Amino acid sequence: MLIVGELINTSRKAIKEAVEKQDKAYIQQIAQEEAAAGADYIDVNCGTQFGKEIETMEWLVKSICEVIKDKPLCIDSPDAGALDAGLALVKELQPQFQPMINSINFEQERYKEVLPLVTKYDAKIVALLMDDTGMPVTAEDRLGVADNLYKGLTEAGVPEENIYFDPLVKPISVSDKAGLEVLQTVKLLTEKYPKCHKMCGLSNVSFGLPNRKVLNSFFVAQTMVLGMDGYIVNPCDKLMMGTIAAGQALIGEDQFCMGYLTAHRNGLYD
Amino acid sequence: MLIVGELINTSRKAIKEAVEKQDKAYIQQIAQEEAAAGADYIDVNCGTQFGKEIETMEWLVKSICEVIKDKPLCIDSPDAGALDAGLALVKELQPQFQPMINSINFEQERYKEVLPLVTKYDAKIVALLMDDTGMPVTAEDRLGVADNLYKGLTEAGVPEENIYFDPLVKPISVSDKAGLEVLQTVKLLTEKYPKCHKMCGLSNVSFGLPNRKVLNSFFVAQTMVLGMDGYIVNPCDKLMMGTIAAGQALIGEDQFCMGYLTAHRNGLYD
Repeated sequence: MLIVGELINTSRKAIKEAVEKQDKAYIQQIAQEEAAAGADYIDVNCGTQFGKEIETMEWLVKSICEVIKDKPLCIDSPDAGALDAGLALVKELQPQFQPMINSINFEQERYKEVLPLVTKYDAKIVALLMDDTGMPVTAEDRLGVADNLYKGLTEAGVPEENIYFDPLVKPISVSDKAGLEVLQTVKLLTEKYPKCHKMCGLSNVSFGLPNRKVLNSFFVAQTMVLGMDGYIVNPCDKLMMGTIAAGQALIGEDQFCMGYLTAHRNGLYD
Repeated sequence: MLIVGELINTSRKAIKEAVEKQDKAYIQQIAQEEAAAGADYIDVNCGTQFGKEIETMEWLVKSICEVIKDKPLCIDSPDAGALDAGLALVKELQPQFQPMINSINFEQERYKEVLPLVTKYDAKIVALLMDDTGMPVTAEDRLGVADNLYKGLTEAGVPEENIYFDPLVKPISVSDKAGLEVLQTVKLLTEKYPKCHKMCGLSNVSFGLPNRKVLNSFFVAQTMVLGMDGYIVNPCDKLMMGTIAAGQALIGEDQFCMGYLTAHRNGLYD
């Protein structure tokens, strides 16, 4: 199970303000909290900083790498230049780690920009299941995009185990089959590409509904049953991390329930 | 989704005392609470009343049927005589409903006693996946027992849709693959017997571990992904009923999320 901590994102008000004030201590504190809470990768996203994204990305990566020595970063941007800048820096500052890129998809422009970065930096890659026809609707639509991404990535030399398909979770309040489509996609991907991974962010699933954390939590427990093995989440959210630990114990992926018992001792269920 | 309310059971102290005191009002109150909370069937179990189980069963069924007019009963006993007595009475008092029997299994003595009752009363039947070799370990063991029960029940004329296979949930604290075995069993049963149902009780899965309600709740959310469509639970447990509503919304079995929104309005997530 791979947990990507999502908190360092300039779309979040506190991070945006810290970036504007060059408040390095705050950024470092959040990254340290994510690492301590169990994030395997620290996502870094400053995509809202139009016109100054590259310099912001570099400042964030440098700031985080000063204090985070034991966790790799996930460089996250809509801009290929910002991805390249961030990846170059993590390769220099964290040469012992394999970085992660968030994300590629099969929109041709994006695909052509990001593919060379995946091989250049030997990175794990989040592969969003969308293309130039837009957001997919059915599981079969998503699998078609996955076929194209798998072919392109593996032919470029990307090992299967570096690929993290993201089925793109949509709100069940908009389409009541949206969760089902994701579950079916994960099932199909697990059957067809058993060496590849599946990951996703959660918060969309509950958009527009009350008790969003409850829904997000159950959806994590449910998707892992079919093989989802990565989540982009707030690792400081006790409910979410407790869900992941309990869910894994229930699906037979926690020897002697040690992970669950550790989560209990760490107060995740208090 | 079929919810069987488990509270009327003399293994619970309060029910045992009410039976001993012939406190009909208390039994009726509990049954009414279960019905109001969303139970589809009210389970009636007085298996601990050795030597007086038949008269206790009759008293319980009569007491409950005086106040519960809109929900059928699930007659639950280790003793075939008590099953027969309870079923005869519900057929008389609730002729409009199909009763449920909890349970048959493939232990030959039990099987031969209960099978005639299933056909005699045209009942839904909980079919426990165990036989004279004892409790099953693997999913394949369970499927083998299911094959025998399916063959025997359908050859006796029981419609497939009346069969509720119960894979027998065991504690993950004893075997860390116990949850996985149940999930795999549900998957195999869904593939092989798509018209039959799958149901289970939950509380065993978390035996010996802390935060049992959390584990039970996540296991409900997870098992329904693979086709579990019945649970024997406490319907007055808000967390459990909230889990079922949220879980169904997430797997595409709640049109327009109306069940989830109703659960929210009823305070299940407060």
